[in-house]
Amino acid sequence: MDLWFTEKYENNTALSIKIKKTLYSGKSPFQKIDILESEDLGRILLLDDFIMLTEAHEFAYHEMIAHVPLFAHPNPEKVLIIGGGDGGTAREVVKHDVVKKCVMCEIDGMVVEKSKEYLPTVASAFDNPKLDLLIDDGIKYIKENKDTFDVIIIDSTDPIGPAEGLFKQEFYKQVFNCLKDDGIMVAQAENPYYYTDIQKDMFDNLKAVFPIVTMYLSFIPFYPSGMWSFAFASKKYKYNDNPRISDIENMEKTLKYFNNDIFYGCFALPNFAKVVL
Amino acid sequence: MDLWFTEKYENNTALSIKIKKTLYSGKSPFQKIDILESEDLGRILLLDDFIMLTEAHEFAYHEMIAHVPLFAHPNPEKVLIIGGGDGGTAREVVKHDVVKKCVMCEIDGMVVEKSKEYLPTVASAFDNPKLDLLIDDGIKYIKENKDTFDVIIIDSTDPIGPAEGLFKQEFYKQVFNCLKDDGIMVAQAENPYYYTDIQKDMFDNLKAVFPIVTMYLSFIPFYPSGMWSFAFASKKYKYNDNPRISDIENMEKTLKYFNNDIFYGCFALPNFAKVVL
Amino acid sequence: MDLWFTEKYENNTALSIKIKKTLYSGKSPFQKIDILESEDLGRILLLDDFIMLTEAHEFAYHEMIAHVPLFAHPNPEKVLIIGGGDGGTAREVVKHDVVKKCVMCEIDGMVVEKSKEYLPTVASAFDNPKLDLLIDDGIKYIKENKDTFDVIIIDSTDPIGPAEGLFKQEFYKQVFNCLKDDGIMVAQAENPYYYTDIQKDMFDNLKAVFPIVTMYLSFIPFYPSGMWSFAFASKKYKYNDNPRISDIENMEKTLKYFNNDIFYGCFALPNFAKVVL
Amino acid sequence: MDLWFTEKYENNTALSIKIKKTLYSGKSPFQKIDILESEDLGRILLLDDFIMLTEAHEFAYHEMIAHVPLFAHPNPEKVLIIGGGDGGTAREVVKHDVVKKCVMCEIDGMVVEKSKEYLPTVASAFDNPKLDLLIDDGIKYIKENKDTFDVIIIDSTDPIGPAEGLFKQEFYKQVFNCLKDDGIMVAQAENPYYYTDIQKDMFDNLKAVFPIVTMYLSFIPFYPSGMWSFAFASKKYKYNDNPRISDIENMEKTLKYFNNDIFYGCFALPNFAKVVL
Repeated sequence: MDLWFTEKYENNTALSIKIKKTLYSGKSPFQKIDILESEDLGRILLLDDFIMLTEAHEFAYHEMIAHVPLFAHPNPEKVLIIGGGDGGTAREVVKHDVVKKCVMCEIDGMVVEKSKEYLPTVASAFDNPKLDLLIDDGIKYIKENKDTFDVIIIDSTDPIGPAEGLFKQEFYKQVFNCLKDDGIMVAQAENPYYYTDIQKDMFDNLKAVFPIVTMYLSFIPFYPSGMWSFAFASKKYKYNDNPRISDIENMEKTLKYFNNDIFYGCFALPNFAKVVL
Repeated sequence: MDLWFTEKYENNTALSIKIKKTLYSGKSPFQKIDILESEDLGRILLLDDFIMLTEAHEFAYHEMIAHVPLFAHPNPEKVLIIGGGDGGTAREVVKHDVVKKCVMCEIDGMVVEKSKEYLPTVASAFDNPKLDLLIDDGIKYIKENKDTFDVIIIDSTDPIGPAEGLFKQEFYKQVFNCLKDDGIMVAQAENPYYYTDIQKDMFDNLKAVFPIVTMYLSFIPFYPSGMWSFAFASKKYKYNDNPRISDIENMEKTLKYFNNDIFYGCFALPNFAKVVL
Repeated sequence: MDLWFTEKYENNTALSIKIKKTLYSGKSPFQKIDILESEDLGRILLLDDFIMLTEAHEFAYHEMIAHVPLFAHPNPEKVLIIGGGDGGTAREVVKHDVVKKCVMCEIDGMVVEKSKEYLPTVASAFDNPKLDLLIDDGIKYIKENKDTFDVIIIDSTDPIGPAEGLFKQEFYKQVFNCLKDDGIMVAQAENPYYYTDIQKDMFDNLKAVFPIVTMYLSFIPFYPSGMWSFAFASKKYKYNDNPRISDIENMEKTLKYFNNDIFYGCFALPNFAKVVL
Repeated sequence: MDLWFTEKYENNTALSIKIKKTLYSGKSPFQKIDILESEDLGRILLLDDFIMLTEAHEFAYHEMIAHVPLFAHPNPEKVLIIGGGDGGTAREVVKHDVVKKCVMCEIDGMVVEKSKEYLPTVASAFDNPKLDLLIDDGIKYIKENKDTFDVIIIDSTDPIGPAEGLFKQEFYKQVFNCLKDDGIMVAQAENPYYYTDIQKDMFDNLKAVFPIVTMYLSFIPFYPSGMWSFAFASKKYKYNDNPRISDIENMEKTLKYFNNDIFYGCFALPNFAKVVL
């Protein structure tokens, strides 16, 4: 059956994936949620019609958003995830023995619920005792908690829709205050091939707040262009000041993407992408 | 006008690009050749219906296939390109002052001719005095020239069709012999997300011939998965033994992708891609 | 969500329908069965990936395959349907008061079962006391019943797959024998714009068996070309010899397509379609 | 090469045609004009991205818009075509020996020019001595010519864009006045499956002006739904009062669609389409 999901990108390109069946379609108070079963890429989570993850490739996103800041920090005991409702980022965070507490603040409880039901290999850490799940507004939560976290991970949708506020300077100030003195923030940061304007604004906002700001990259096939970037913003440490990368051995077998070489290599930016910084 | 070119990938996915007009469609003795004008990505070259390049992103391929081996070699005076009919690889090779002679051996003269006509910014080096263009069978040429080149670049289509022979062990032996004692070969090597079987064969063939074999990566939006790999095979030097990377200053302004960080970072491979080696 | 089902036609054209969700996908011993919920056309039944019906337009097929032979026959008391597993043809047949018994012989019980479950407005006559449903091979059934029916309706899929035998001369001979002396057979007969070769064979086979053979047409949007034809083969009556068309008043309110004008007008064939006869 | 033109229809359906090459793309003062070469349907004319004709099937439109009114009128000496820039309608009109003068008033001279250049089998009558081509506003022309024509054919685009005024009651009054006392007007009238609202307005406007108004149909594969309708509005004659249909013999060999049976049969309307009248 020729049944295809298509995501159109801004620059008159589109990506299509052959679908076996629809598993769930609904509307939360915040967004449309669809879960599809694809022919070759496992299940797919869509929010407001945009691909959030494919089971086949989500590791390239979740490992990279989680392990880069966690290995860059010498002692990340308390970690906050804003968003990340599918649970993939939390799954990676709790792999670190050094992490004692991971708070996850997701505004849309329905994303969590449906991910548990349909994406069990992604949403596998919700029962982990180190994880505190809050269904709440991340902006509010961050405002109310000062000087609390070693690492904050902004695992949001794009800056149009419910995540809009997560790309503003005002928010980054609150993140700065919510971090401890040597804290590190990482956020998904779109792609440099198509959305340099959005990126430029985002990085300018970050640089107005954090002393150390840079970008790193991951190959993610079903995000626009296949090149995805993350913003790395830090109060004290550069990513390579004193990384805990040796700890990687403990979790090595569970990692499909991240490793020691990638930790360093992912910060190498092509010239055209550097303009954002 | 909703006119779209679609390339289907093996794993039931497809990429589509909005097209303004068709510029050329023909058949050479070797393959179908089509050149399209896209809405947002410039012109597109198709060989046998597969995207070879988009004007918007070809730099990410051509800079990476050319500059990595050339900067890894201490003195690449004589360079051979097999294939590369559009001229983009040659354009990058001749930028190196140290290169005295670049032989380009392309089997299909019609690709050269049509690239000159329709893709002038890609095919810009055909008049360069350092470039010798041969319209001939690369396999034959390599067999007939022993101990001749410092760097050989295999800029071929995929291993189905006219380029099939360029992925075999027998061919790599001839390449080995065609290189000088400290020569380096680089070849386009498909992508690790979809084609690990093809890659495994290719790298096994290379490792049977060359003492030093590794892989490096580039972000190329309109190749399947957006992650493209290159095989690096060397008789003597590791890529980071004594790179000429300082020479980059001479050509820095012409580079949109390659730089010093990328030279090192591109050899960082995700775990799932390492299985090929 | 940009989720589209596409059916490709032989002449390099394709029709696409936006889909809300998949309702059922399975395999019977005979064919693939899929039921989709479309955005604007109601539910869609696919057999082996071809559209059999859309809820929005199925009336144009079912009314025309059923009422033309039934109104053309002066006294159609016993009617046989071969195929027609979705129940739409039976629904139309039992509307006729003059019909005392309608035997429906469908080879694939799963089509009946799934239509009852997912297409209740189509499969609405299965409980009608006048209807005898047999899950059996229509070719066998017809062979075993001589001189029995006033009207036989061949409501089959296309001549590739399980319905192949229903387009052969040998089968039409059996149909001839299964009909009473003044019996009429009607069969779905593809479309004259694309499949004149298939039609030519089919009508040649019919003309070798029946003294009266002609074709009539219906506008059906989601069959290839939108023009669908039916073969009318008769042992004695021309379609307009003594039609029972006055009886139409009894069922008029239930008819969205068929009426007195259509009964006559549908036998008007464009010149290009006449070549088949 | 997987290059497809797609036309989306209002009810979340789409039709796609495989394209070999683009022949012309431009903008007149009135609309976008594109001419494509398809794989299997010949050349295609698009105005404002909507399919106007395919070479393969245009006969089904042009024969039906021209011959129905011309054969319905006992003596159509003077014929006016409004629109019809591709020339297909004029080609059919001048086939009638009884026609002494055919005025064609097309607002967009570029459509005529490009049709002559790229669609010679459609635009084949522009040199015919009986044809007067005016590049002018049809609404103005009709207002300025009273009591002049036996038959007026409105061969326009859809009621959005340059043709909007051609669907209004005010315009139909002018058409009425421009016709002789026994004149007949025919106009393309969209399709009853999708656009009954537009049709209802159009036919209400016609019925407010003309004493005799009805609709007839043609099977046209690449118009939405494949079912196309034409409005027939007449000052005196019903379509079957005294048709000149016997004259058909003179042109019979040139007709692929129209014939005597079709002349009568095309006025048979399915029940769902009658609601418009």
